[in-house]
Amino acid sequence: MKKIAILGSTGSIGTQTLEVVRENKDIEVLGLAAGKNIELLEQQIREFHPVCVAVWSEGKAEELKVKIADTDTRVVTGMEGLIEIATLEKAEILVTAIVGMIGLRPTIAAIQAGKDIALANKETMVTAGHLIMPMAKEYNVRILPVDSEHSAIFQSLQGNKGNPIHKILLTASGGPFRGKKEEDLLNIRVEDALKHPNWSMGQKITIDSSTMVNKGLEVIEAKWLFDVNVDQIQVVVQPQSVIHSMVEYEDGAVMAQLGTPDMKLPIQYALYYPERRYLPGDRLDFWEMGKLDFEKPDMETFYGLKLAYKAGREGGSLPTVLNAANELAVSKFLKREVKYLEIMEIIEDCMNAHKNIANPSLEQILQTEAETYERIESRR
Amino acid sequence: MKKIAILGSTGSIGTQTLEVVRENKDIEVLGLAAGKNIELLEQQIREFHPVCVAVWSEGKAEELKVKIADTDTRVVTGMEGLIEIATLEKAEILVTAIVGMIGLRPTIAAIQAGKDIALANKETMVTAGHLIMPMAKEYNVRILPVDSEHSAIFQSLQGNKGNPIHKILLTASGGPFRGKKEEDLLNIRVEDALKHPNWSMGQKITIDSSTMVNKGLEVIEAKWLFDVNVDQIQVVVQPQSVIHSMVEYEDGAVMAQLGTPDMKLPIQYALYYPERRYLPGDRLDFWEMGKLDFEKPDMETFYGLKLAYKAGREGGSLPTVLNAANELAVSKFLKREVKYLEIMEIIEDCMNAHKNIANPSLEQILQTEAETYERIESRR
Repeated sequence: MKKIAILGSTGSIGTQTLEVVRENKDIEVLGLAAGKNIELLEQQIREFHPVCVAVWSEGKAEELKVKIADTDTRVVTGMEGLIEIATLEKAEILVTAIVGMIGLRPTIAAIQAGKDIALANKETMVTAGHLIMPMAKEYNVRILPVDSEHSAIFQSLQGNKGNPIHKILLTASGGPFRGKKEEDLLNIRVEDALKHPNWSMGQKITIDSSTMVNKGLEVIEAKWLFDVNVDQIQVVVQPQSVIHSMVEYEDGAVMAQLGTPDMKLPIQYALYYPERRYLPGDRLDFWEMGKLDFEKPDMETFYGLKLAYKAGREGGSLPTVLNAANELAVSKFLKREVKYLEIMEIIEDCMNAHKNIANPSLEQILQTEAETYERIESRR
Repeated sequence: MKKIAILGSTGSIGTQTLEVVRENKDIEVLGLAAGKNIELLEQQIREFHPVCVAVWSEGKAEELKVKIADTDTRVVTGMEGLIEIATLEKAEILVTAIVGMIGLRPTIAAIQAGKDIALANKETMVTAGHLIMPMAKEYNVRILPVDSEHSAIFQSLQGNKGNPIHKILLTASGGPFRGKKEEDLLNIRVEDALKHPNWSMGQKITIDSSTMVNKGLEVIEAKWLFDVNVDQIQVVVQPQSVIHSMVEYEDGAVMAQLGTPDMKLPIQYALYYPERRYLPGDRLDFWEMGKLDFEKPDMETFYGLKLAYKAGREGGSLPTVLNAANELAVSKFLKREVKYLEIMEIIEDCMNAHKNIANPSLEQILQTEAETYERIESRR
């Protein structure tokens, strides 16, 4: 039996991870953590019987305790609770499917407790890759990417130990606004931005895909995961989202992973790596596919991607500013407090105002996040 | 120093293998074999200083001896000569870049002498895969595919030991006559059929690409190399020849190798496997690529492919009939003795007339070849 814990079990990746668990009979779920959706969490507890669950909100945690008083599952809360789930004694793999920089401390705690990480929390690598990667090496734990693009890169690297990466070709769908120019984006509404052409995902990442900031965060994440510099990473728009990403080697060979848009594939690959198992679902049909298109991304209109390259190139605490500014700006856009194009303006403004710290500590990263939030809240 | 010998050193794959040797400084060429182009062979001897060379034609071998009397290179001839090159004492890898069933005996001799095989001679696998594969296992030698498609499949299998192949997606350019129907092919001339849209190759294989018999031979070759049945192999027309082939796994993931049409890549990969080295040459540019098309092959018009599936499915000596009939029919087409569509008619006629032998011995294979030739020569 493989033993896992999941941070963010009621979100999109969390629920799909549990679908993978349901299909396979040899994974035991020891811990789950959720924000506030205790209705779904209760169902998950009754189906998977975890030893312990964490609920972010203290009030909700108390409510849940009453609901599941008839079970053996313990309920913990807050950051301490998250860290408890991340470090559960017998767990082997922690799935970090939580959204945002809140995932940082629990991920570090899990690594220090010797857990392999199935990484679905971009923010960890974006803001603290310089801390995480050496720490994973020190504690001899594996960082197994769950993002579809990073999993594709990881799969394309198999059997190539010792063969240096010449270039990573990180594919992007281009999102719902591909081909549009600044003037077309002036009055984008929340519901327009939430329509992703290929993937069904959480709200935050769907907005990030539409601005291409998501691709920018992935560039920085890939830099750390695969030990390359950002200028070795080329973003290629591949609107059908069939090629999930590619690696070019020194001999010119390009290895690629292709598939249908189903997150269960990278989730399952991370959980069972290097074994592949049957996975129910649609398959690619090359006789019916027609064509695959490739384009250069429009980094002038979607300049969040350009800002991410800048943050990735300069490193230090600048990627934290990019990430935090984007996180708050998107949340304000979803609440209709800022306009669509302001997301990128806010990121740029915060990055310009920031005095970069080289090799920031965890405290400095969290401090940078807080300062970035303050700057945005005090705007106007 | 890696020590190699090359059968067919003056042909397309042979000369490109020597280009790879020239670029790298740590390969020693111990033996070369050529048919009759002793002018080029002499140049190769003076550049690479092999211990021994074989020339198929006895008269040409005598001529060459005189020309290179000032060197230390020995000259041998005929099938015995080929086998001597294939089994040279210190050689580690034999590159079988010779065309036709003539490669069969030397390849077997090399395996029995413990040489790894860089396989560029399709006929070996097509006609004798059932003998070669168990023999390679018995003598613990590696069969490293050099064909661009099979190398792509081989590359797509790396890091997947223990993960069963669900399906092989064997790509095909479709050749110069893609989209044409039978009536368009009635009066095809030799010079039309020799115009391949993407690859520059020898004459025989270029004609085979135009009829898609080449793809059919590759299906049978892949069946043996990768231990699948032919119905797990799907031919996909990919006219730009960018995707060199793909493997679909049980989880639905498809791994692919992409590249420019440069045979030096699979040659170098076979010679240095699993190491990749810098290779000069063009690289794929996904920002400028535009699109990749995918089509179902037209197996009614190009029914040589359908015949190959039949031969691969039934096995025994039938693939030898397909191969031998095609070999002679194409040679007659190149001499303008038969018309283009007769190539497929001759193959079908020979296959229909043949009484299949299950698990044929080497002698039965060669006998089947001879009988197939006789049948064609006695036509009309």
